[in-house]
This record gives sequence, C-alpha cells and structure tokens, in this order.
Amino acid sequence: MIEETSKENIEVRIQMAAVAYQFLKNTTIKERAAFMNAVADQIEALGEELLTTAHTETSLSLARLTGEKARTTGQWRTYAKAVATGIYAETRIDLAQPEKQKSDIRKYNIGLGPVVVFGASNFPFAFSTAGGDTASAIGAGCPVIVKAHPAHPQTSQMMADVITDTVKEFGWPEGIFSHITGTSYEIGAYLTQHNDIRAVAFTGSFSGGKALFDIANRRENPIPVFAEMGSINPIVAFDHLLESRAEDLAKEYALSLTLGVGQFCTNPGVFIALKGENIDRFIATLKIEIPKIIPSNMLNKGIFENFEKLKSVASAQSEVNIVAEANTEINEWEGRAVVIETTGQNFIQNGILSEEVFGPFGIIVACEAPEEIQQIAEELKGQLTITIAATDEDVRQNIKLIDVLKDKCGRLLFNQMPTGVEVVYAMQHGGPFPSTTDARFTSVGPDAVKRFVRPISFQNWPDEFLPEELKDENPLQIKRMVDGEVNSGSLKLPTT
Amino acid sequence: MIEETSKENIEVRIQMAAVAYQFLKNTTIKERAAFMNAVADQIEALGEELLTTAHTETSLSLARLTGEKARTTGQWRTYAKAVATGIYAETRIDLAQPEKQKSDIRKYNIGLGPVVVFGASNFPFAFSTAGGDTASAIGAGCPVIVKAHPAHPQTSQMMADVITDTVKEFGWPEGIFSHITGTSYEIGAYLTQHNDIRAVAFTGSFSGGKALFDIANRRENPIPVFAEMGSINPIVAFDHLLESRAEDLAKEYALSLTLGVGQFCTNPGVFIALKGENIDRFIATLKIEIPKIIPSNMLNKGIFENFEKLKSVASAQSEVNIVAEANTEINEWEGRAVVIETTGQNFIQNGILSEEVFGPFGIIVACEAPEEIQQIAEELKGQLTITIAATDEDVRQNIKLIDVLKDKCGRLLFNQMPTGVEVVYAMQHGGPFPSTTDARFTSVGPDAVKRFVRPISFQNWPDEFLPEELKDENPLQIKRMVDGEVNSGSLKLPTT
Repeated sequence: MIEETSKENIEVRIQMAAVAYQFLKNTTIKERAAFMNAVADQIEALGEELLTTAHTETSLSLARLTGEKARTTGQWRTYAKAVATGIYAETRIDLAQPEKQKSDIRKYNIGLGPVVVFGASNFPFAFSTAGGDTASAIGAGCPVIVKAHPAHPQTSQMMADVITDTVKEFGWPEGIFSHITGTSYEIGAYLTQHNDIRAVAFTGSFSGGKALFDIANRRENPIPVFAEMGSINPIVAFDHLLESRAEDLAKEYALSLTLGVGQFCTNPGVFIALKGENIDRFIATLKIEIPKIIPSNMLNKGIFENFEKLKSVASAQSEVNIVAEANTEINEWEGRAVVIETTGQNFIQNGILSEEVFGPFGIIVACEAPEEIQQIAEELKGQLTITIAATDEDVRQNIKLIDVLKDKCGRLLFNQMPTGVEVVYAMQHGGPFPSTTDARFTSVGPDAVKRFVRPISFQNWPDEFLPEELKDENPLQIKRMVDGEVNSGSLKLPTT
Repeated sequence: MIEETSKENIEVRIQMAAVAYQFLKNTTIKERAAFMNAVADQIEALGEELLTTAHTETSLSLARLTGEKARTTGQWRTYAKAVATGIYAETRIDLAQPEKQKSDIRKYNIGLGPVVVFGASNFPFAFSTAGGDTASAIGAGCPVIVKAHPAHPQTSQMMADVITDTVKEFGWPEGIFSHITGTSYEIGAYLTQHNDIRAVAFTGSFSGGKALFDIANRRENPIPVFAEMGSINPIVAFDHLLESRAEDLAKEYALSLTLGVGQFCTNPGVFIALKGENIDRFIATLKIEIPKIIPSNMLNKGIFENFEKLKSVASAQSEVNIVAEANTEINEWEGRAVVIETTGQNFIQNGILSEEVFGPFGIIVACEAPEEIQQIAEELKGQLTITIAATDEDVRQNIKLIDVLKDKCGRLLFNQMPTGVEVVYAMQHGGPFPSTTDARFTSVGPDAVKRFVRPISFQNWPDEFLPEELKDENPLQIKRMVDGEVNSGSLKLPTT
C-alpha cells in the first residue's frame, strides 16, 4: 500500500521548491558540484540494505543492482565534474567597445526553476529518484520534486532520504528536494500544470509521457517536457555481413533481446534483412539460442501482464509466425522470450507490429528487396537507437538507406547491440518523436543538464553584482568565451 | 496585390526541401560557412535598389535601412564564423576502452530538417527573408522555407533571389531555399503541420506565434517552434538613481520609446518606480521631451491602425492619465507617441495595461511602496528584457526584487535602454513565455543556430563512414571534446 501525499502537502512542497530555487539559482557551479559528489558518497554508503530492498521490490538480480548502483553514483560524479567545468554555464562575455557603441554583455545559463521528475520502473537507481534526471536538474540549479515510481517505494524512499540528508548537511533550503508518493494519475497532472513548476523529466511509456507533454503545452505558460518514451530500436542487417556472421549475430541478438528480461528502452525489438538463405541461418540459430536463455521474473505483475498481452496480440496478427520462444513453464512473472517473423509489406501495413512490446520480444522482418527496406526506413517512427549490421562493403552499397535511418534515431550503432547505454559525453539517449518529446536533448550523459537551463544576459552590469561565473576576475577559473575566443583567465588588468 | 503560392507549388517546395536536406545535412560546417559568407557578399552587392524598395514598402528611413542591411550581412558573417569553429557541432568523442567494455562513441549536432521561417514586418532585412532565422537554420544544416511577410513583398523577393542565386552558384540542390508568398493564415498552418517540416521560427505577434506553437504541438509528431512574440520590457527605476538622474533618464526613455516609431520587440513599454517627487520630475521632463520628437510613419496602415486602437483602449482605462503626447497632427500613418500614468494596484489588476502596444506607447506605474513593486515583479509575465535603473546602493537594497526580475526576462540591463539588440555571442533575445515559446533559445546572436540542431551519436563506426567533424584525423581542425577534454588535434597516431 503506497501512501498518497496529500494535495495540501504537495502544494507546500511546490512552494518550498519555488523558495529554494531563489537560493539554488545563485549557487555557483562549484557549489552544486560539491553537493552532487556528496550525494554520490551517501548513496555509496547505503550498502547492502539498498540492494536487498530494491531486489525485493523489482526482482532485479543483486548483481545487476550492484552494477546499477555504481552507475548511479558514477552519474552524480560525472555530471558534477562536467558542471564544475562550466560547460553548461556556457559563459559568453562581449566586452564594451565604447568607440563602436557596443555595450558590455555577459551571458550564462541559469536553472529554469523547479523540475518535476517522474522516475522509471526499470532502473530503480539510475533512472529514478536519485537518477540521472534528478542529478542533471540539480546540476543545472533547479530544485527537484520527484514523483516516486510506485513499483519500488521503499527503494525510492531510501534514495530520497540520501538527498534530503545531503541538503541538510549542506545547510541548504529543504525545498531543494521533495519526494511525492502516490499512484494516481492526478498527482502527475497536478504537478505538471502548476504555475511554479518550470520543467518536467519523464522516463516511461508513450501514453504517460505524451499526456504530460500535452498538459505542459496547454498551460497558460507552457513549459518544456523531456519525456523518454521508449522505442523498438531496429537492427538492419545486410547480406555480406549476414553471410559471414549470421550465426554469431543471432547469438548476440538473442542475448541483447533478453538482457534484463528485455526491460530496456534500447531493447532491439525489430530485426530487418532481406529474405533468403542468410536470414534463414540467422533464424535457425535463434531457434537454438532463445530457448537456452532461462527467463527471470519481470519487474512486477503489471509489467508481466502487459508483456503477455502485447506479445499475444502481436503474435496473433496475420502473416506472422513464431520462430523461437523460451521453453520453460510460466512461473510467477517470468518474461518468456518470443521472436516472431513477418514480411516487409506486413510490417509496413500493420501498425501493431511497430509498437513497443516492453520485454523480451522481437520481430524479424524478411524483406523482398532493398527497396522494401528503404520503404520501411522512410516510414519508420523516431527511435532511440538504430543498429546497422554490415560489412564496410554493405555500407558503401547502402549509403542512401543509412542516411535516411540517421534521421530516425538519436544513436546509430555499427555491429554492436544497442542495449547498454554508456554514461559518457558522447552518449545520445534521445531520438526523434515518439522516442522522446524533443530530440535536441539527451537524458543520459552529462549533456542531460542542458534540458534544465536557459541563458540570461546581463548588459552593462557592475562587476560586483554579476554571478561568479561572469565576474571579471573569473574566480571560478572556468573557460569562458570572451569576444568570441576561449579564455580561461581573469579579465582584470594586473595592478602595477 | 500579393500572389499566393499555390498549394501544389508549396507541396513541391516542401518535397524539394526534404530532398535538399539529405544533401545539406552532409555538408561540413566549413562548407556551410562558405555558403553563408557568399550570401553576405551578394546582399552587400544589392546596393541602392534594395534600400529604396524597402523604404517604399516599410516607410523606414534610408539611414535606418542602411544600418539594418549592414547588420544583416554582419549576421550572416558572424554566424558563418561561429558555425565554422564547430561550436554548434558540439563534437564529443569517447574513445573505446576495450578493457572496460567501453565502445567508441562519437556525437555531433546535425540539422533537424526543413525549417519554416516566418519573417517580421519591422525588420525587412535582419528578421525577415534573409534574416537571422534563415542564416541560423542554414548554418545548422537545415533547408529553409520562408513564408514571406506580406508587408514588404518586393524586398522579400530581392532577398530570396540572392539566396536562390547563391544556391545555384554553389551547385547545391534548389530545395535548400524556398520563398512562399501569400497573405492567408492557412499557408502558415499548412506548412507548420506538414510532416516533412521539422522546425518553425517566427517573429511577430503573440496570437500568430502561439497559434503556430499550438499547431506544431498537436501534430502526430510534434516539432519545435521558436516564436519570438514581443513583450513590454519593463524598466524598474529606484529612488537614489531617480534623485540624481530623473531628467536625464526621462530624455533617454523618450528616445528609446520612440526609436523606430516604437516598432521594436524591445521597446520599453512600462516604467515602474515609487510615487513621489522623483517620478514627478521624470514625468515633467517627459512632458517636454515627448512632444519634441517628430513622429514618422509606421510600417504600414494595418500596424498604424492597430496602434491607434490599442493606444486608445489603454488610455481609456480607469485610473489612467495621459501625461505626455506628441503634438503633431496625424498625417498618413504617423505613430504619435503617448505616455500614460497609472497606479501600481491598477496595473496589477487591469490586465489590459500589461499587453504589448506595438508602437511608441509607454505606461508609467507609480507605486505606493517597495512591496507593491515586488508584487508587480512577482506577477509579471515573461519578458525579452527588463531594465534596472539604479545606483549601486539601490541594487544592494533591492537584491531580492532584482532576483525575482531575473526569472522574468532573457536580458537584464543596468542603466541602459533595452532597444538596440547587439548581434554578439553574449546576446540573449528570448525570454520566458509569453515573450518567446522556449526561453532556452535565442533568435539573435550566433547561438540562434542551436535551435535547429540535434545530437546524433555514432557508436563503433568505421572512420571512413563518419562525418568529417568526427573523423580521427580531425580534417576540419576544430576543437573537439575527446574523453572529456578539449582537443584540437588529430587522434591518429603519427606513422613512423
């Protein structure tokens, strides 16, 4: 039973967040980085209890949770380091040139204001209460209100306590972080339409993300929503590659498809190739490999039931054959993998086959001709990832096709499976709609901070009243763009 | 009489833009910069005919148009230079670390796709057909479809011809630039909801910008709209400053309010201060200064009539007095300046007084107490600019108020009038809603390019197939972030 935070209490927390914003927006990037590192220290200190609690609530293995915990502290530290460099302050200074009637103008990025974070069910640490959205919003200078995911309430509370404790330890206003619990849709809607909320971050289903996006845009003063809503992450495999690697590729695909019981946003749900002997060898290997994988329990009963339902619906479409499936009996909420096969035309015409099935479910699309693959590419919706399985020769022969696929994804892989989203600067976890609501941003990697900042220019201001990031002396010793050139120094002339 | 581009023709141009995008997105930043400089050269070469045509169509003086033309070519050149540095490619490379199972991931920014630009009436060069939106979209790698502003069709056509000629000169696909003419609302709506359009840039009225924003968000695949919709650009003046400078400030205000017949997005429509002797001196000077300014014709009859109407409506509100006005007879479409005065409470309660009156119209708000100014600040809608007229002592005494004002604007000025938007890196021309639809972006300065790019990551790709910006050798010799550090060199080991 999850306690619902009362409306009155939510209202109080929003007011506290608005007050805390006035404090947090005036902290420097260095101060926020120190805070973020302290959160990482505290998460690290949580030890076994966190892991066992999360394991109980999510069925995720202790090994996986151990890795995810390290990833989560890694996110706080990596983002902290990036924030401290000033890269997201994007400082720009154009000095006065009185002879040209040019003013002194200085710009930097400031936090948008209170951000509401909706965590994901499938990453109880890394994409949830103390996950990447919270870290990047605080790094940006925005107080955070987390709407806890009801699938792991105890885990969420433990993570919330860590951040609350760190706020206290730093003597910062309590409203910098709030933890709202409850299962009702209304809470999310209320938060998103509240005048004091300035941005929303969401990871989850299309219906959930799109609903928040619509609410935010219909406000009297619309606000940005970054919703990561998943995708089917196609793999397009070409014949030269398949000819030499069909069996190996099938083994890699089977592992990627079933990793974490298929519960990843980047799960490769569609495999596209020309029909013929090569894809037949690929399928023959899948028939051997998929049953070898022992299913585990899914995150919760709801996700399991939804998986079973969508899997059945897709498998029951006409011109669809099941080509491989896990052969264990269903036990509790085990996510039993299924791979189906269909034709290119059927995939194009039957929209149901392009919808995400959250879990270990794949569709092999066997196309008649390269033109059919091109047509699929052109009609494909936006994806988080697309993978090209190809030799160099295949790429040279399919430049036009690959160019179209670039327009449909945020990350384009070459001969690697898309599961496994590294937390690095170069990561893009955000593709064209409907995989996310704004392909210009990412929710993984330090660049995630950018979602929550906006530039503000100060024209003709006395140095005394400028934020530290913009003062002549460059007290934070960051790289700044001064008159169009990168400059790490002070702008003060040395006194002689 | 403006010729309406036919629906069929618009459809053809959109298809051509989609095709041209496949070319343009694969040009390098250096190639696009060369194109942009060539456009600047051609605009420069247009000479007198451009100026006289624009003068006839807009009533703007030749001196003003000469300045605006220089600004426009300056925009193309400045943005070209910025694009060529790679600052908007935002290249990030994380090299493979096989021992840590880390892949080679490389990210850069690519153009979003075809962009529709709606030019402004008040800047026939700098914010119109070949204005900053077009320059920044092409710099980003996006084909542009301009919906010409009907207020200056010949000027627009001349500018369009320049870009079309440059496209030909470069041997680039014709669809890189299209010029759509017509006066109907439907054309804009059709373009904005077309599946092949990927972003919209707009400068104009709130009703126009908001309508496009709503259409774009209600698409099956929503797209970003950056609409700059103007604002009332408050000046908040404090008593120490007024005590020493009331008369000078009134002279500066009168000039700024009437500059360009008040037809600037950054026109200072509201002046807020405490009531008393100081503001009385300010008003007394305005009474002398405003009538000194000889009105000029406004841009066109529609704008003049709208100005007359809104000015009358605002002046006719209760508790409002006219304190200064131009004393010439109305002749043709002359924009005759009017300044009214009201109380703080009336300004808060009567929403009409917070609406933009496009033209030389100002409201002086005389407040009872500092708390009333604070209340106005808290209830203020988003603005492009806010100006603080203050001594250092005033600032120290009003830190909390100024902090709230920061949340309400994109540019905060100190003792300078807001008209005059410099085209520099540090410029922010984009404030919280409703001044723009997304405060995270600017439409002036090279950073305007950012609106039209999105990141794409390449994971594990062979060097041969990467864009030039990401190749090992760094053939474009740009600064790139490699493993978290700025690096200008090649990643290839020298062969020995």
